Amino acid sequence: GYGRFGILYRDTAAGVDSTDVTSRFRLQIDATAESDAGVVFGARVRIQQDNDGLANGVSAAPETPIDADGDGDIDYRGRQETGINGVRFFARSGGLEVGVGNIYGALEFMPGMYPIDLGLTGHSYDYTAYNFRGDAYDSDSNGAAGLNGVEVLYSAGDLSVHVSASDVGDRIAGFVAYTWNGWTFALAAQDSDIVGDTEWAATVGGSFGPADVTLAYAKNGDDTGVIGGTGDHWVLAGRFDVGAATDVEVYVADADYFTDTSYGVDFNHDLGGGTSLRGGISSTGFDTTLVDFGVRFNF
Amino acid sequence: GYGRFGILYRDTAAGVDSTDVTSRFRLQIDATAESDAGVVFGARVRIQQDNDGLANGVSAAPETPIDADGDGDIDYRGRQETGINGVRFFARSGGLEVGVGNIYGALEFMPGMYPIDLGLTGHSYDYTAYNFRGDAYDSDSNGAAGLNGVEVLYSAGDLSVHVSASDVGDRIAGFVAYTWNGWTFALAAQDSDIVGDTEWAATVGGSFGPADVTLAYAKNGDDTGVIGGTGDHWVLAGRFDVGAATDVEVYVADADYFTDTSYGVDFNHDLGGGTSLRGGISSTGFDTTLVDFGVRFNF
Amino acid sequence: GYGRFGILYRDTAAGVDSTDVTSRFRLQIDATAESDAGVVFGARVRIQQDNDGLANGVSAAPETPIDADGDGDIDYRGRQETGINGVRFFARSGGLEVGVGNIYGALEFMPGMYPIDLGLTGHSYDYTAYNFRGDAYDSDSNGAAGLNGVEVLYSAGDLSVHVSASDVGDRIAGFVAYTWNGWTFALAAQDSDIVGDTEWAATVGGSFGPADVTLAYAKNGDDTGVIGGTGDHWVLAGRFDVGAATDVEVYVADADYFTDTSYGVDFNHDLGGGTSLRGGISSTGFDTTLVDFGVRFNF
Repeated sequence: GYGRFGILYRDTAAGVDSTDVTSRFRLQIDATAESDAGVVFGARVRIQQDNDGLANGVSAAPETPIDADGDGDIDYRGRQETGINGVRFFARSGGLEVGVGNIYGALEFMPGMYPIDLGLTGHSYDYTAYNFRGDAYDSDSNGAAGLNGVEVLYSAGDLSVHVSASDVGDRIAGFVAYTWNGWTFALAAQDSDIVGDTEWAATVGGSFGPADVTLAYAKNGDDTGVIGGTGDHWVLAGRFDVGAATDVEVYVADADYFTDTSYGVDFNHDLGGGTSLRGGISSTGFDTTLVDFGVRFNF
Repeated sequence: GYGRFGILYRDTAAGVDSTDVTSRFRLQIDATAESDAGVVFGARVRIQQDNDGLANGVSAAPETPIDADGDGDIDYRGRQETGINGVRFFARSGGLEVGVGNIYGALEFMPGMYPIDLGLTGHSYDYTAYNFRGDAYDSDSNGAAGLNGVEVLYSAGDLSVHVSASDVGDRIAGFVAYTWNGWTFALAAQDSDIVGDTEWAATVGGSFGPADVTLAYAKNGDDTGVIGGTGDHWVLAGRFDVGAATDVEVYVADADYFTDTSYGVDFNHDLGGGTSLRGGISSTGFDTTLVDFGVRFNF
Repeated sequence: GYGRFGILYRDTAAGVDSTDVTSRFRLQIDATAESDAGVVFGARVRIQQDNDGLANGVSAAPETPIDADGDGDIDYRGRQETGINGVRFFARSGGLEVGVGNIYGALEFMPGMYPIDLGLTGHSYDYTAYNFRGDAYDSDSNGAAGLNGVEVLYSAGDLSVHVSASDVGDRIAGFVAYTWNGWTFALAAQDSDIVGDTEWAATVGGSFGPADVTLAYAKNGDDTGVIGGTGDHWVLAGRFDVGAATDVEVYVADADYFTDTSYGVDFNHDLGGGTSLRGGISSTGFDTTLVDFGVRFNF
């Protein structure tokens, strides 16, 4: 697992600003056993605690800070999650894996959906084109566990395929990805009963000299012309090595449901021994400015 | 601990049927220390997560499925337990053990009360004659911890004795068991303030050639003539080896408070490395049909 | 971590008495990583379960027992905490440490604030002069995590300094401690918006032959003349070795907000292998008599 902590500054479009301590603790438990025939059975579970919310068990968007402790200052903090999340179980043999429970989800797991991880905290994740409109592994809570989450992953050489389904809006989603000459192309589609869920997505990513570049698109429903509604989502992101121990990440993203174009830049500096210094600055799709800075350590 | 996952099919007497993913994750922590005089002090605690319920923290009987996710389909799923259960503490020296907290309970721990473990999930546990009308170690919740749960276990050669007590209905229960020529005879009695609690129970178990057979009886209050009420509970169960890596379990059980005789059959096939394939079919005392199939792995 | 269990007897000023099983399970996780430059980053988290309350998540003062299980007897028991507490993160280099989250707190961590640990359970902690009127590491819950808890600890030779701050009542507190000829002198001060919070405190502790002795004082607001209100708090406590494996602790404490002088005596007897027998008797500041006896084991 890992821990991270630092400072997070936030200034919303409405001019409400705050500076708070931010932190996460993640203890990951991967328990496995292997049959005589070589099939690996396992479970992944996390004990995680963030302070990214309004109250215990309630998370909050960066755009909606409130006065959580009643002292007259606006803040953004505080929820305590205390136990394990929903469990993902799997059986794996060769390039084939079947998962049930708190599944990864095909859209979430599609190459190019997390082209970068901005700053210390990830900021607004506006650079994740499918915009969380599909099943995803939930580190805090239950995810699709208990709602018949099932998925099949297959990979062979340069090809990978992933199909996932759950009773969350009767979602079924899948992607196909292929790597050719160092470039990975991926195409995904989803069918569900939930208005606003992603319909299809496409990404392409690879390297130009010292830079890793990803272009991603998702059709998250037809454009409603409503902020926070549905529509197209575009992302262009890159990572550049700057010296032996430092890299810089940048992105620009826009969506029909944003008020503004979203963009950001960060740095990650390796301190050795599994520790790193990280920080970033971004302007979100809802015109909130986020700045974070801190340390992450793996254990 | 162990993980298990698979498919569970259910068809109730009212004709409501559903097929769902079933799973359990159990991480068991046994922490002990030994004094210079050889007394072992310890604690047992579990981090467990099932999907055997209606909602977080609420379990459900197999007979009462509901539409948990509001999609119009009947289902049976979903609760997420996230932390540790009530703790059992103990001090052990030679054949004597004193336990406090989330105690095992004398009726629950009596030989012959769990003659088999049907299929992947255990099904309705109709083959447990005392019908959970006494203190028992609670893997999900608090059990008798916090309610002055105390128990004493003693064994010497072929004799074992267990007395438990708690403030749950001021229960006090005990059993005496003796093994003679490969057959184990056990007799238990309980006094409590709870109507419907087990009054006494008796079991006998042993081997006929390749088969392990158990006969169990519990007097769970006088017969009220009410379904789900009180009365006698009978169980006959057996386990048979079928080949080197496979066994088959069967049971038949009846109780005054059942609508129908309960019966079932299962198989367990060892896949090596602590993994096994399991499945079973049963018809419960309330005329619900259960079928499960899946895998279990120890870690 | 450790476990402890035993018996706790309680007799309040109102004459309500009860005898209950008491227990605690604490699993402590200290996760760290060290950078190439020698800075240690880490997190401390506990999975703890006590039965020291009225219900899950609700603790209770020894003076206010209730009939928690509705059986007509007064009792004091039962809460089950199931997950991890708030996390304390830190970065440490040489004698300097910065902590954030569920911070230790300068008043809580000040030398002389825990001169002894009475009996099995700690009893009423009347011998902790600052009376928990400041930030402190919370083993059950969130503490100052999520409320911008920050602290800096520095030590060099005989000198130690600790400053802590949080958004809990905008508390800021600090102490300076110095050890001279085997005696440790400490002085602390706090500013906060919370009526009744400690204003300043002073302690001195050291050894007289076989005895460790501590004198502590805290000004917990001006004397309101109200029981349970605010005012001065004095503590005198000592520990004496009695034979090779046994020690005895005693204390006497008084506060303006007590109804009576508080005092107590205990013993700790080492059983080897990280196990010990412990017990104590005290009369609290609210005239409740507490007697406990039991075992503690480290793992």
